[in-house]
Amino acid sequence: MKNIVLIGSGNVATHLGLSLVNNGYNIKQVWSKQLKNADILAKKLDSTSTDALNNLKNADFYIVSVKDDALESVIKQLNLNNIIHTSGSIGLEVFNEKSENYGVFYPLQTFNKEINLNFSKTPICIEANNKLFESELLNIGNNLSDKVVTINSNQRKQLHIAAIFACNFTNHMFSLAYTILAKSYIDFKLLLPLINQTIIKLNKNNPSQMQTGPAKRKAKKVIQNHINNLSDKKTQEIYKLISNSIMEKNE
Amino acid sequence: MKNIVLIGSGNVATHLGLSLVNNGYNIKQVWSKQLKNADILAKKLDSTSTDALNNLKNADFYIVSVKDDALESVIKQLNLNNIIHTSGSIGLEVFNEKSENYGVFYPLQTFNKEINLNFSKTPICIEANNKLFESELLNIGNNLSDKVVTINSNQRKQLHIAAIFACNFTNHMFSLAYTILAKSYIDFKLLLPLINQTIIKLNKNNPSQMQTGPAKRKAKKVIQNHINNLSDKKTQEIYKLISNSIMEKNE
Repeated sequence: MKNIVLIGSGNVATHLGLSLVNNGYNIKQVWSKQLKNADILAKKLDSTSTDALNNLKNADFYIVSVKDDALESVIKQLNLNNIIHTSGSIGLEVFNEKSENYGVFYPLQTFNKEINLNFSKTPICIEANNKLFESELLNIGNNLSDKVVTINSNQRKQLHIAAIFACNFTNHMFSLAYTILAKSYIDFKLLLPLINQTIIKLNKNNPSQMQTGPAKRKAKKVIQNHINNLSDKKTQEIYKLISNSIMEKNE
Repeated sequence: MKNIVLIGSGNVATHLGLSLVNNGYNIKQVWSKQLKNADILAKKLDSTSTDALNNLKNADFYIVSVKDDALESVIKQLNLNNIIHTSGSIGLEVFNEKSENYGVFYPLQTFNKEINLNFSKTPICIEANNKLFESELLNIGNNLSDKVVTINSNQRKQLHIAAIFACNFTNHMFSLAYTILAKSYIDFKLLLPLINQTIIKLNKNNPSQMQTGPAKRKAKKVIQNHINNLSDKKTQEIYKLISNSIMEKNE
């Protein structure tokens, strides 16, 4: 059984840790800057906890799964081999080149600690500094997920940006819709069939071919009318910018 | 069996017509400005076609389902009773007040002629100029769909705007993601599990509580880095504006 030290206790670390344990890996230790958070995750993973980066246990792999903004400073404090991070936006250059084996294990998913998900359907994007370590990471990936791909740092960066549009920005569109409806006492759930159909169409089609709505039809009177009917200035600006972008795409 | 004349032959008219026929209504005639388009839909609905607005057959209901920008001018050419339109963004005021019965029958969905959908899961929003006609429209609605609500013109306008954010703008986010990935030779399908999980979370949660990503975490270095890594100026602008909007929402 492979031993792993998990450095981080956030949304990604939680779901990845659970999937590793469910697939026969041993999480030997969980680190977090806040011992309390390390404790919470360690309990879920039947593991131990620490807040001391200079006092980690020996393990086969070290997985650093912390916020992007903290990743570099955390890795600089470590002097470990077989170390991987889980970030979409940071490349291999963050590692100390003296390490023999290092890599990236990027699960392409939106994680919330409180929300269950089927990790086996989550694509995992692998990169490593050598072929042997790459194959070890592919092996772990294949134990956790049905969809494992190798991808280089540049591609992963673009993939992460695309994921932000497809997930975070999409979710923010839902947020704005929610706020608009709440002001008119309409239940957001009324939109769910529409949202589901929007997603179903993606399975077989290029999204730009599936575009519908006033901007697609260049219905400028409708668009102006909608902008006038939005009470929030920032939301107006977003409506205008995205509508223009749709119209340009369909020229 | 109720007889209906369908004025329009686009995406909404097509799906609505099919659902009406499947639920025992007779489409007596299909009108389109282009006779060819009326013919295509009439064939699907076992109906007849015309391009003459002044020569429509007698029917129990007239459904006007044309582009928003054309709706007013089409309705002005008609002198009919029991007339309804299917637009989210236009109110009852578009009708001639001399008509005894008029109303709105707005199916809240994204329709593409070529793509099948389960119409019974499509919410239908009803408004009428009197209670009796409202109950007739509710009756038709309930024959076609599991979810029928009455909603006034102001609410429907806000609902339509919210639907544009939740569907059209969301789809455009997918389009932008597709373009970003295509430039790096990455298959858009890799994003589908992420997109599905984003939607699953909506079933039980307020979307703003489900927000994830760099803007939610206020990871400004990551955000700036992403903007620098986008090759298209307009896409950069959209990234910036939506990220700011997410950050403001989470202040």
